[in-house]
Amino acid sequence: MSDKTANQMWGGRFAAGPDAIMEAINASIGFDQRMASQDIAGSRAHAAMLGATGILSDKDVEAIREGLLTVLSEIEAGTFQFSTALEDIHMNVEARLKEMIGEPAGRLHTGRSRNDQVATDFKLWVRDQFDAAEGALLSLIAALLDQAEAGADWVMPGFTHLQTAQPVTWGHHMMAYVEMFGRDLSRVRDGRARMNESPLGAAALAGTSFPIDRQMTAEALGFDRPAANSLDAVSDRDFALEFLGTASICAMHLSRFAEELVIWSSAQFRFVTLSDRFSTGSSIMPQKKNPDAAELIRAKVGRIFGANTALMMVMKGLPLAYSKDMQEDKEQVFDAADNWMLALAAMDGMVRDMTANRESLAAAAGSGFSTATDLADWLVRVLGLPFRDAHHITGSLVALAESEGCDLPDLTLAQMKTAHEGITEDVFTVLSVENSVASRTSYGGTAPVQVRAQVARWREVIA
Amino acid sequence: MSDKTANQMWGGRFAAGPDAIMEAINASIGFDQRMASQDIAGSRAHAAMLGATGILSDKDVEAIREGLLTVLSEIEAGTFQFSTALEDIHMNVEARLKEMIGEPAGRLHTGRSRNDQVATDFKLWVRDQFDAAEGALLSLIAALLDQAEAGADWVMPGFTHLQTAQPVTWGHHMMAYVEMFGRDLSRVRDGRARMNESPLGAAALAGTSFPIDRQMTAEALGFDRPAANSLDAVSDRDFALEFLGTASICAMHLSRFAEELVIWSSAQFRFVTLSDRFSTGSSIMPQKKNPDAAELIRAKVGRIFGANTALMMVMKGLPLAYSKDMQEDKEQVFDAADNWMLALAAMDGMVRDMTANRESLAAAAGSGFSTATDLADWLVRVLGLPFRDAHHITGSLVALAESEGCDLPDLTLAQMKTAHEGITEDVFTVLSVENSVASRTSYGGTAPVQVRAQVARWREVIA
Amino acid sequence: MSDKTANQMWGGRFAAGPDAIMEAINASIGFDQRMASQDIAGSRAHAAMLGATGILSDKDVEAIREGLLTVLSEIEAGTFQFSTALEDIHMNVEARLKEMIGEPAGRLHTGRSRNDQVATDFKLWVRDQFDAAEGALLSLIAALLDQAEAGADWVMPGFTHLQTAQPVTWGHHMMAYVEMFGRDLSRVRDGRARMNESPLGAAALAGTSFPIDRQMTAEALGFDRPAANSLDAVSDRDFALEFLGTASICAMHLSRFAEELVIWSSAQFRFVTLSDRFSTGSSIMPQKKNPDAAELIRAKVGRIFGANTALMMVMKGLPLAYSKDMQEDKEQVFDAADNWMLALAAMDGMVRDMTANRESLAAAAGSGFSTATDLADWLVRVLGLPFRDAHHITGSLVALAESEGCDLPDLTLAQMKTAHEGITEDVFTVLSVENSVASRTSYGGTAPVQVRAQVARWREVIA
Amino acid sequence: MSDKTANQMWGGRFAAGPDAIMEAINASIGFDQRMASQDIAGSRAHAAMLGATGILSDKDVEAIREGLLTVLSEIEAGTFQFSTALEDIHMNVEARLKEMIGEPAGRLHTGRSRNDQVATDFKLWVRDQFDAAEGALLSLIAALLDQAEAGADWVMPGFTHLQTAQPVTWGHHMMAYVEMFGRDLSRVRDGRARMNESPLGAAALAGTSFPIDRQMTAEALGFDRPAANSLDAVSDRDFALEFLGTASICAMHLSRFAEELVIWSSAQFRFVTLSDRFSTGSSIMPQKKNPDAAELIRAKVGRIFGANTALMMVMKGLPLAYSKDMQEDKEQVFDAADNWMLALAAMDGMVRDMTANRESLAAAAGSGFSTATDLADWLVRVLGLPFRDAHHITGSLVALAESEGCDLPDLTLAQMKTAHEGITEDVFTVLSVENSVASRTSYGGTAPVQVRAQVARWREVIA
Repeated sequence: MSDKTANQMWGGRFAAGPDAIMEAINASIGFDQRMASQDIAGSRAHAAMLGATGILSDKDVEAIREGLLTVLSEIEAGTFQFSTALEDIHMNVEARLKEMIGEPAGRLHTGRSRNDQVATDFKLWVRDQFDAAEGALLSLIAALLDQAEAGADWVMPGFTHLQTAQPVTWGHHMMAYVEMFGRDLSRVRDGRARMNESPLGAAALAGTSFPIDRQMTAEALGFDRPAANSLDAVSDRDFALEFLGTASICAMHLSRFAEELVIWSSAQFRFVTLSDRFSTGSSIMPQKKNPDAAELIRAKVGRIFGANTALMMVMKGLPLAYSKDMQEDKEQVFDAADNWMLALAAMDGMVRDMTANRESLAAAAGSGFSTATDLADWLVRVLGLPFRDAHHITGSLVALAESEGCDLPDLTLAQMKTAHEGITEDVFTVLSVENSVASRTSYGGTAPVQVRAQVARWREVIA
Repeated sequence: MSDKTANQMWGGRFAAGPDAIMEAINASIGFDQRMASQDIAGSRAHAAMLGATGILSDKDVEAIREGLLTVLSEIEAGTFQFSTALEDIHMNVEARLKEMIGEPAGRLHTGRSRNDQVATDFKLWVRDQFDAAEGALLSLIAALLDQAEAGADWVMPGFTHLQTAQPVTWGHHMMAYVEMFGRDLSRVRDGRARMNESPLGAAALAGTSFPIDRQMTAEALGFDRPAANSLDAVSDRDFALEFLGTASICAMHLSRFAEELVIWSSAQFRFVTLSDRFSTGSSIMPQKKNPDAAELIRAKVGRIFGANTALMMVMKGLPLAYSKDMQEDKEQVFDAADNWMLALAAMDGMVRDMTANRESLAAAAGSGFSTATDLADWLVRVLGLPFRDAHHITGSLVALAESEGCDLPDLTLAQMKTAHEGITEDVFTVLSVENSVASRTSYGGTAPVQVRAQVARWREVIA
Repeated sequence: MSDKTANQMWGGRFAAGPDAIMEAINASIGFDQRMASQDIAGSRAHAAMLGATGILSDKDVEAIREGLLTVLSEIEAGTFQFSTALEDIHMNVEARLKEMIGEPAGRLHTGRSRNDQVATDFKLWVRDQFDAAEGALLSLIAALLDQAEAGADWVMPGFTHLQTAQPVTWGHHMMAYVEMFGRDLSRVRDGRARMNESPLGAAALAGTSFPIDRQMTAEALGFDRPAANSLDAVSDRDFALEFLGTASICAMHLSRFAEELVIWSSAQFRFVTLSDRFSTGSSIMPQKKNPDAAELIRAKVGRIFGANTALMMVMKGLPLAYSKDMQEDKEQVFDAADNWMLALAAMDGMVRDMTANRESLAAAAGSGFSTATDLADWLVRVLGLPFRDAHHITGSLVALAESEGCDLPDLTLAQMKTAHEGITEDVFTVLSVENSVASRTSYGGTAPVQVRAQVARWREVIA
Repeated sequence: MSDKTANQMWGGRFAAGPDAIMEAINASIGFDQRMASQDIAGSRAHAAMLGATGILSDKDVEAIREGLLTVLSEIEAGTFQFSTALEDIHMNVEARLKEMIGEPAGRLHTGRSRNDQVATDFKLWVRDQFDAAEGALLSLIAALLDQAEAGADWVMPGFTHLQTAQPVTWGHHMMAYVEMFGRDLSRVRDGRARMNESPLGAAALAGTSFPIDRQMTAEALGFDRPAANSLDAVSDRDFALEFLGTASICAMHLSRFAEELVIWSSAQFRFVTLSDRFSTGSSIMPQKKNPDAAELIRAKVGRIFGANTALMMVMKGLPLAYSKDMQEDKEQVFDAADNWMLALAAMDGMVRDMTANRESLAAAAGSGFSTATDLADWLVRVLGLPFRDAHHITGSLVALAESEGCDLPDLTLAQMKTAHEGITEDVFTVLSVENSVASRTSYGGTAPVQVRAQVARWREVIA
């Protein structure tokens, strides 16, 4: 909700009667002024086409072009007076244009309608956000690749159920997020490509009898082609829903990473130190670093998926073509886009700034019998035991180590042999954390050599 | 998202680097300034208590009281300078207070913390909204009662599956919504009563060693009692979720009514005429009335339930006590509250203004063999047939009437008798629409006498 | 989705053509057979009323009563043959009744309809679940009270941002959840009271001309009164939405507690040991206890709120009265109720079984300068410093202690005096964790005496 | 919820104590048995690879292969005994395999883990659903193309706000849905391509030290490549979320069409007649056709998006790698997939069966001054008036016609000239509905020639 409306209600709350209520619920200029540059770009393309097809005279087209540029400069300069009485950005721009150039302004709307105009503006706005998201994701991936490369061989615990399972490398963990954000990137690109069809010229809903050239306006606005059905062109909000769905999945990835950063920043874990720039202190506990940015990022998935829910519910069961319900689309997308970009930027900054606490990571990696699986695998590989048998033998040795108050590498060979006669000195080569991670060289595995290969692959992908 | 942040991003989008990003994601003053009056009320109650318990001197308390009143007047006058660097409303107010009264300002925070302060402010704000919702619901119910009373005996079709099922009365249909909004009212009151416990004095999370009197501040702020657990008091956002849940169900009722108004306004139905104040015209089709307000109301359930989704997802899995994620609570509730109030006000206005088209309603009520059930009931009641048999006989008569191109009352007695010998002239008394509705006098039935009784009952309930 | 339908689709997936598709999408017997006992209870109450009002003969009523009891016993015995061709539980029961008692079965449906019948059955089912939830919440609260009482003075860290903030007690932390589940209990009772109005006798939507006694059937079924508007009675699903909303908030509380149990079970925290019964092991790591039950509980809020979302979206924009869309209500509520009950039961068991690791808790409570606030409060209380000044002095002492590698109680008085001359030996009395928690005796504070008082209060509340 | 669990709770509700509760919440065999064929396919591919890489002997591999085929045939024959004690489909299959072939069964699990196994099975299942959705969408599009081609020149009203705006053609309206389902098809294909990476061999989370060939198993299972990060491979549920998001948008399209079918089937509209196969009658009103299938389809978007909400909330904030919360993924996806397929099949059948009521459509198309825009466009095109002026003149003529009780084509030329002197006889050529639609030949417009061109284009696209 814009401040304006908020303030309006802060005061008398509709004491002013029906007209004030209708204006408050109906006018969109409070938020759709964010599409001003898109609106003017659309009008310029439309005017140029009306000239090229002979529907408007060159003189009128030139007047419109000049006028629109002036309006744009007024808006950019902050001198434009937006009027709620004029309801939306489209009428505000057109009214100002008429004020400046007179009659030709009234010809601009030939062969189009507010329905295709709003769809065009909104699509251009969303497309810009897809592009911004692409840039932000590429930057975040680059930040993660730097972390991954630096720590390709730093050991840390790999968790399942937040319990130590097997050692992994810091680089490997970072690269897991590269995969996630890489899929987000792919979704962003698919979504952008799918939406890139121009509604302009669909008119109110039926097309028009003017000999307009929709291909020309589509090209001028960077669309791949005109939308092929005029009813659909003004009724479609798939692009907004797909944008929100894509943003939601990405925000979920951000929330998972943020959760890890919060946990890792706790006194109990101390896996990572966040920079002062992305944490807040306390005047009373200067040593304390609250991971505020991480927590706020963690929360954003709610906000973004909430917007997805809102718009999905708005669109549910709407008959064709345009219904005013659809005016509720923009604030949801604006807010979600702002917060997605903000969360991406904050995570990017945090990743670049954060410091892995290698000693804490290594200590944790080596505790909890984390190389038990390596022992089991050795029993299978070297002694030829079936997997399930190897597991049981390993279990008995873990139990023995636990009762002895030591870890697996600390057991003697004699102790080892109590579990299985065939065990030899060679077993100890797989029980260190470093050897464990180094051995997991299967494709996509945690071995430093694999991590570095993936870093190299991704550097090319995003180049 | 506040305009400020929006504009911030509109431009350089974080080009300014990490500090700008952290400020954008972390500062809440852009939205929590809406809680200014609540914040000052809380501080005044706290200061008075600190004086009464001897924790602060009377002189300090008086200075604080005066200072806070001045701050409030500055805010109300619009002369207060909000600072993003001071992050939130609490620090903004305190900093201005210090500027004005010096040292005593620093004593105000004794025995409290930002965590209980924000919980107190937010609860007071939400409580105000519960009260506003109560008022708006009472007004809307009153508007519906007027419609119901006026049209207690106007006949219209009762639909199932949007197919005519049985005749009902306009008044009965209006009263269905009275029941819905009545349940909303009940939920509003329950929610308000449940939330009315004061967090103030819970301090950061553990309570305090100062001899504060939480009962006193609770009373001063209109709370029923202090919250009984300090950890919970600062971690709880149930009141916000229950507010959103209550608003969502109410918004769903509004969406159902709005859907009916949209359908009823169509050229095909013409059941109702909305006033010009709540519809929009078209310069090209002056006769046209687009039910814009109804459509926008229909959409609001998405927005409000989207906020519910957002906050539920934010709170999911948060460990105790305060986490910064919870700062995402306010914008969702602010936006949902604004839109709920707006939708209630718009529906209230529409209901007061709308005109039932009695002739269209009556014509529709009498078509589609809508008294078939009355015929069946007559067969059961008068001829003693089992219900299922009566249904089959009625079905055959409907089929006969349809093949004859007439409705049930137009069949002759002889034709009636082909289906069952026992049918007598008396049957025609139940086949008119007016008789049909008049006969349904079971409690809660559509008979005008029942409708009027319910109107009378509700007038007392809301008196 | 029932197994039946699942299997149906598992195979040919609609190869059988339109009839199979319509049966699959339309029939509800696959799930609504869970309301069999409610359906029969409703029919028994209706039949008794039809007898008492003279609408049916005593003989017919007796035959119906006997027949329904037989049907119920067949269903309970598992010998009843449910038929998909008969679509739903209502028709299945009625058809079997007719098979057994003949004509009188056809009279049972007098003065009611499938619409009010399904609403009645479903309300009775939901009411049972509210009751089950009440019992489960009382049991869980009792389990928490036992934990709280046992550990009223066990110290542990109180967290904000998952960073140690101040020491609290185990009992205090448990009592925070008692407050949450206590509010859930209150919501359950409010929801149950609000929904307890009988739809029976609303008939299809308009009421009936039979002289039925809705008060009598309402009483027989334990309803407080008959629903006052027949259109609303068959169109209302508020009770299901309120049930889901209440369940969602409770599931959110469960998810927060579950998150804590998962974190507390980690090797890094070791705050709690879950019993073997609610954790799973690994053949290879016998020492490992995965908190599976806690994780699954944490997930349930998604499932339950997903059901809330589903039903809210179904109801959005539905015109009155009954639409078939509403048939989608039951599976959502059934699944949510099952999972809510399961989550409550699992949490109850876990709480009863879990063991606090007092040493780990105490060690963590005493680290991180957790009594810094106590020091600041001492400076305010004893030396009369303004709160904000006391904070800054404390901050400098924390910084000093950190640079010395010690905690606050380990500083010498001389070191203390470097920050403020007025500090005396007395300051050390507030720096121990035990003294810290003992001092926070404000109402609702963490002091053991306060915790025990709250335990006592709650024991009375749930008695 | 599976029937098993349901029944379990139907009875004693956990009276059996903690073990029963843990089994109920933890075991997944009740639902994951639906992945039996995928599980066996994955194991077969893994075993073959273990043989090819020399990790297992050919003899063992052959025994495993034979054994797995036998297990599959038992499951397909319905003779397999699923055991809840064995928790999930993976252990059930392995246990049975061991029973049959002994020790080699224990070797099958070499170089993999339950974590990558479940991810593989689930991905294969979801991929099958993407394929099924593709087929269903192609069929539905084909059905719509037939309707569009048949009615390329049938006129009907084009609505905005459910008010008649301009005439369109039936074919054009059908083609709007072709565009929507075409985008769904595109999303299905993108989602399938993106998810088609094999988790198999990621092992628990770190990869393995066995010299496995993940490329080989990926190929054998039809994956495009192995997933590149083992941590991500077992933690990723993007594919399920994208599936649900894609299904939700498609279900929203279905809900919009279903809403139209419900409205169009009303007595007031009578635009369409649904077949008996997809509507239900009433014994008492044999002429009535309730659009049950359309209403149930309209509701499915709630159910499917509810599942999306559920899984999004489950995944929110989960640290890496596998957590048991993720076990909640399957039932949501199973239920959503079943209902999506069902809704697509039902809509497909309805579209093929439905009959447009051409006369009702034409009558509605010609009422409400629906060619007002054509008149305005004529004034612009022929008389060279600015668009906004033309609109005002048209408005005055519409007002005149309304006051005369006629439509625009019924005005005399003299009457026309009162609004603008320049109007000539030629104007009447654009005022008929047929001419109106025929004139809208802009690309994507409603003119029959454009509709037929789009039908032809789409026939090629789906060929």
